[in-house]
Amino acid sequence: MSLTPTQKAPLDVPVERRALYEQNFREMTRGTGRIMMMAADQKVEHLNDDFHGPGISEDDADPEHLFRIASRARIGVMATQVGLIARYGADYPGIRYVAKLNSKTHLVPTKMSDPESRQWLSFEQLDLFRESSSLPILAVGYTIYPGSRAEPEMLREAARLVYEAHQRGLLAILWAYPRGAAVADERDPHLIAGVAGLAACLGADFVKVNEPKAKDGGNAAALREAVLAAGRTRLICAGGKETSVPDFLKRLHAQIHEAGAAGNATGRNIHQRSLPEAVAFCNAISAITLEGATLDEAVALYQKELLAASAAE
Amino acid sequence: MSLTPTQKAPLDVPVERRALYEQNFREMTRGTGRIMMMAADQKVEHLNDDFHGPGISEDDADPEHLFRIASRARIGVMATQVGLIARYGADYPGIRYVAKLNSKTHLVPTKMSDPESRQWLSFEQLDLFRESSSLPILAVGYTIYPGSRAEPEMLREAARLVYEAHQRGLLAILWAYPRGAAVADERDPHLIAGVAGLAACLGADFVKVNEPKAKDGGNAAALREAVLAAGRTRLICAGGKETSVPDFLKRLHAQIHEAGAAGNATGRNIHQRSLPEAVAFCNAISAITLEGATLDEAVALYQKELLAASAAE
Amino acid sequence: MSLTPTQKAPLDVPVERRALYEQNFREMTRGTGRIMMMAADQKVEHLNDDFHGPGISEDDADPEHLFRIASRARIGVMATQVGLIARYGADYPGIRYVAKLNSKTHLVPTKMSDPESRQWLSFEQLDLFRESSSLPILAVGYTIYPGSRAEPEMLREAARLVYEAHQRGLLAILWAYPRGAAVADERDPHLIAGVAGLAACLGADFVKVNEPKAKDGGNAAALREAVLAAGRTRLICAGGKETSVPDFLKRLHAQIHEAGAAGNATGRNIHQRSLPEAVAFCNAISAITLEGATLDEAVALYQKELLAASAAE
Amino acid sequence: MSLTPTQKAPLDVPVERRALYEQNFREMTRGTGRIMMMAADQKVEHLNDDFHGPGISEDDADPEHLFRIASRARIGVMATQVGLIARYGADYPGIRYVAKLNSKTHLVPTKMSDPESRQWLSFEQLDLFRESSSLPILAVGYTIYPGSRAEPEMLREAARLVYEAHQRGLLAILWAYPRGAAVADERDPHLIAGVAGLAACLGADFVKVNEPKAKDGGNAAALREAVLAAGRTRLICAGGKETSVPDFLKRLHAQIHEAGAAGNATGRNIHQRSLPEAVAFCNAISAITLEGATLDEAVALYQKELLAASAAE
Amino acid sequence: MSLTPTQKAPLDVPVERRALYEQNFREMTRGTGRIMMMAADQKVEHLNDDFHGPGISEDDADPEHLFRIASRARIGVMATQVGLIARYGADYPGIRYVAKLNSKTHLVPTKMSDPESRQWLSFEQLDLFRESSSLPILAVGYTIYPGSRAEPEMLREAARLVYEAHQRGLLAILWAYPRGAAVADERDPHLIAGVAGLAACLGADFVKVNEPKAKDGGNAAALREAVLAAGRTRLICAGGKETSVPDFLKRLHAQIHEAGAAGNATGRNIHQRSLPEAVAFCNAISAITLEGATLDEAVALYQKELLAASAAE
Repeated sequence: MSLTPTQKAPLDVPVERRALYEQNFREMTRGTGRIMMMAADQKVEHLNDDFHGPGISEDDADPEHLFRIASRARIGVMATQVGLIARYGADYPGIRYVAKLNSKTHLVPTKMSDPESRQWLSFEQLDLFRESSSLPILAVGYTIYPGSRAEPEMLREAARLVYEAHQRGLLAILWAYPRGAAVADERDPHLIAGVAGLAACLGADFVKVNEPKAKDGGNAAALREAVLAAGRTRLICAGGKETSVPDFLKRLHAQIHEAGAAGNATGRNIHQRSLPEAVAFCNAISAITLEGATLDEAVALYQKELLAASAAE
Repeated sequence: MSLTPTQKAPLDVPVERRALYEQNFREMTRGTGRIMMMAADQKVEHLNDDFHGPGISEDDADPEHLFRIASRARIGVMATQVGLIARYGADYPGIRYVAKLNSKTHLVPTKMSDPESRQWLSFEQLDLFRESSSLPILAVGYTIYPGSRAEPEMLREAARLVYEAHQRGLLAILWAYPRGAAVADERDPHLIAGVAGLAACLGADFVKVNEPKAKDGGNAAALREAVLAAGRTRLICAGGKETSVPDFLKRLHAQIHEAGAAGNATGRNIHQRSLPEAVAFCNAISAITLEGATLDEAVALYQKELLAASAAE
Repeated sequence: MSLTPTQKAPLDVPVERRALYEQNFREMTRGTGRIMMMAADQKVEHLNDDFHGPGISEDDADPEHLFRIASRARIGVMATQVGLIARYGADYPGIRYVAKLNSKTHLVPTKMSDPESRQWLSFEQLDLFRESSSLPILAVGYTIYPGSRAEPEMLREAARLVYEAHQRGLLAILWAYPRGAAVADERDPHLIAGVAGLAACLGADFVKVNEPKAKDGGNAAALREAVLAAGRTRLICAGGKETSVPDFLKRLHAQIHEAGAAGNATGRNIHQRSLPEAVAFCNAISAITLEGATLDEAVALYQKELLAASAAE
Repeated sequence: MSLTPTQKAPLDVPVERRALYEQNFREMTRGTGRIMMMAADQKVEHLNDDFHGPGISEDDADPEHLFRIASRARIGVMATQVGLIARYGADYPGIRYVAKLNSKTHLVPTKMSDPESRQWLSFEQLDLFRESSSLPILAVGYTIYPGSRAEPEMLREAARLVYEAHQRGLLAILWAYPRGAAVADERDPHLIAGVAGLAACLGADFVKVNEPKAKDGGNAAALREAVLAAGRTRLICAGGKETSVPDFLKRLHAQIHEAGAAGNATGRNIHQRSLPEAVAFCNAISAITLEGATLDEAVALYQKELLAASAAE
Repeated sequence: MSLTPTQKAPLDVPVERRALYEQNFREMTRGTGRIMMMAADQKVEHLNDDFHGPGISEDDADPEHLFRIASRARIGVMATQVGLIARYGADYPGIRYVAKLNSKTHLVPTKMSDPESRQWLSFEQLDLFRESSSLPILAVGYTIYPGSRAEPEMLREAARLVYEAHQRGLLAILWAYPRGAAVADERDPHLIAGVAGLAACLGADFVKVNEPKAKDGGNAAALREAVLAAGRTRLICAGGKETSVPDFLKRLHAQIHEAGAAGNATGRNIHQRSLPEAVAFCNAISAITLEGATLDEAVALYQKELLAASAAE
């Protein structure tokens, strides 16, 4: 199985919407078949923990920071809640949006209760919003927690969400995180491959997983099992905790070129930086993901852009 | 980020309702961008504890007391349940109302069960009520308890409530109180900032939070984190327990001028007073919130109005 | 606040139904503003415990006993389940009915599980029944258990039930009983005042509460707090366990004249008697509730009617 | 209260369906006002335990056995699930059916979890089935478990099921079994009377209960309380475990003539016999229930039919 | 009872759809009345455990492997989730599909929580998919877990699923696995017969069960009880864990010819093999199931096809 830059619409996309689906795919992936997704749903998922504190730029305190980055950097799409898109979208009409349709806080720990997250807006509500906003909302997103005792209702919502997205020519991205009292190791490679396959059965166009932790340290190689299990559903990895730029880009390069990942979804590593740093970092990520840059080229690009930004100040 | 006296309609307000939304915003905030909300939903939330007992005016025993105050004082809006609005509204058509759409009693303690509160009337029911009542209902209100195990359903209801309010050109106010077995400190400044940001992601126009308790005692300063996290969603503070008038006004002044709060939501501190005292107190609050008064001016106004009221008796 | 014999329709009654609402109110209260409600929903709530056994008339074994009493005595309304009304109503078209829309058995004790009771028929179903039966169904009834962990869903159903009743020009009566593991004393006066106020916020026209138990024995005086808290929602007391006729009437007289109650709701005290006794007793209750009789007059009336009945045998 | 051979339609039957209801009643009761119901819902309720094993005829292993009996014997109606009716009905168009709309297995024991059983098909689905099948489906059946913690939802479903049946001119039969951790003695006579009265309040036309166990052994006499409590709702007894034919018929005769029961509902005692025995047994039951036979006459009939059947082999 | 190659439509199939139902039956069973179903729903049910690891062909890592097998081998139908059918179906239009409408992962162990699996897509959604895909979807599938505390909702969904399938002229297959804390032995023959009968009452056309484990080792003979209990609902056995080809075929032959099973449903035993092996194995299964081959003939066919495949490489 090798990924192509184009993607034929699955058959739950009605015939008259297939061209739209394929166009949305091209736009999301900038014609590359790979996606650079800025994950901007964390104000719910992590509350203010990722936006305020030591080592976090003061820029990040304001939600508009997310929109400023996404509008200035070369990204594919930004995923966030409809409430934020509705509030800021008029000033940022050039961003391509993924409407993240469910979210939960991290307040209830897994050891207290299995995770559960429910779809906020219905598709009928989303339809009217897409119309009244005129914004380029190309896809929807939804998180599933396989292994939670709330799994049955979430799988049902996820399957219907994918179906309804396809009915409209939109793409569907599933965040798939095994979690709950029954899950001993959330980053077990075999388990992550399992939930990648589950997302394929749910009909997802993209599945976002956490990078597995291989016993031998070869995480990217371990990710290969998941890429295969996902089949024609393209797999992207979550960016994870804040790390150094070269380390991050090295991991990303391996995910794409060793494991066959179709891109990345990065949140904290982007928005916790100041605006110029964040923009430069996005562009370095996109260089690898969308433009075929080597690791060295991407690091060099990041440093060059940072320099230009501080010169411009 | 600085608040302006006007607010552009978010994009989930249909084009043909945006002028109405902006007019409702102006009316609620009396053209100031700040709100003075009389929180009159406590006959459910606190049952009769706040309305009868030592230190509470006998005036407060009768629900009509709430309407008498709101109709005679300079307030922005009064928030209460539709049942009460339906019963008294014909005699108080001049009050601007916020229909509080969910409420629960305080009988089940948090240590026994996580809090849960569900939407009472549907929007279709509210629509007919707005029509049959002809009352100026400018907004709806809803309480969320992030950190409760019932959070998933409440976030879903809240997101849909904001959306449906906006569809009608109404504003949406979320009461956001972290609460449940998983919440160690409900007034932790960082946590309160988190739920303020959550309300922004849910699309709220205003978020009402409890004033945080800062370790260094600088509560208003600590509130600044939450004001920033809320972004374009305006933040107001709950009035809290009964306190002296100058202390209350001092705290309010700091919330607005130090933290950047967009007003206040006060319940017990108003209605537990006799009618003349309550009116004078509301007017002092409004002087700070809506009219730019200094603390001294507001305290002086309160005393002057009380004097005039007792002279008139 | 003083009750008047008439009641203006609340604003959730559509304009074109307000005359009907006010007429229904007059009929229910026989033009007095007070209600004498025969509570005939106990075949569910208490199963056969109240209908068979020592000290209970054999007449009470047959459900038709309830209809025989209500059709021969001067009462205001009889509240019972739609199933019984449908079965016996054709033979008793002169009774004014309250359709009690939820009920539960007493089998599951509070110490085992918090009480929960759900609405049986929808309003759409009730509409067709009102049409197909041609019976004078003037109101609906619903029981809430504030303090139960099932409170959120019951408050939601109650609020919608009041609203839907008003949409049709019907009245709504809430039975409000604080109950559950969280409720230490169900008859605490302050708590009963609280749930009376809650019923007002839910929009009820009448709220039925259990008589509070005051520490000083002055139950009727203690009830005054609840009457005030209910505001324009009229408060009536449950009749409670079987007691002697003069004791019962004395208590009733005090509830009305000391506390300001708007009537009574009596079940067991009526139907556990033989038909002639039950009729005489109802008439004595109505004499106080609806006709302004003194306690002595009411007791005398009861004795006179009983004598006449035994003479007629 | 004495039962008549006819039954006036309750008022939730629309005027234009009342003749149909009364005709369905006549057909179900063969014009007698009493019902002989073959309870054939046990392949779900008891799985294969009642259909295979020592003392059970091999005929009973095949579900068609139920239809063979019902088509050859003189019965009133056969109650079973729609799935079976759909599969075999075309070959047995002469049977009068009761569509049993809920069922559960006995796998989860009461001591592990309170019983819960939900309605399978909706009435809209049943309507189409009645039309597409052209079968004489005269009534619907539903089991309630008063005392279960799942009672609220089952009472709601039962009330709506009775109502919807009546809307269509169909009859409604409730199986009423007190059961759950809160129920100490499921066959307490007073409790069984209670659930019979509950079924009346739910609007049932017939209520099926287990025969109570009286302390003095006079079960039929003890059943009288339940017959009275049910009022105009006709009461029938479950047949219970396999027993000898004369014992069974003796008990049945007493239920009808001592307690006033309106018939019987028999399952295992019928279908666990070979086809000729089962047919003869049904006919003996019907002789008592529908044809006024004495006990001796019914026993003689059974023996005569068996003889004829073995002669015919 | 003996199975015929044809099956008359049950009466919940509307008259105008009966020819379609019977044609779908003929196609599914290739005119034999027996079914060879490739169970390809395990990427959800077993995650990646059945698709990657020691003893599993590398071919199995890619979901497309399932479609490759099904398109090249002689099978009856392939059962899998709509998400996969939508993604690969355009390239495999010749496969006859069963849309498996519910699925769960195996992450939550039975000892932690009773199993629950909910219907993913609605029938309205399936209708549009059948239209937009133009694929031959002949049936739907659904798993029930009798004995789980979630049984009530699953039985309700299953009954409605069968009904809705029949309304459309589609067939319905139930996977029936007794499971939960209340189930001591999932493979008890008597219990498996019970759930086979339950599936018949739910209206299923086929029921898939696990092969029972008989105490005397005569599993196929033990299965006979279940075949009888299912009546006109045809019973098929799950293939179970990987085993040798001759052993597998021997067991299958006995299930069909000793117990009267109507075919088989095989997953792991097929797809864990390389493509040529899997195809040869399917054909051997079909030889027995659909073509009346003896065990020896089937084993010989398997070996001959494998030889030809390796010669062709």
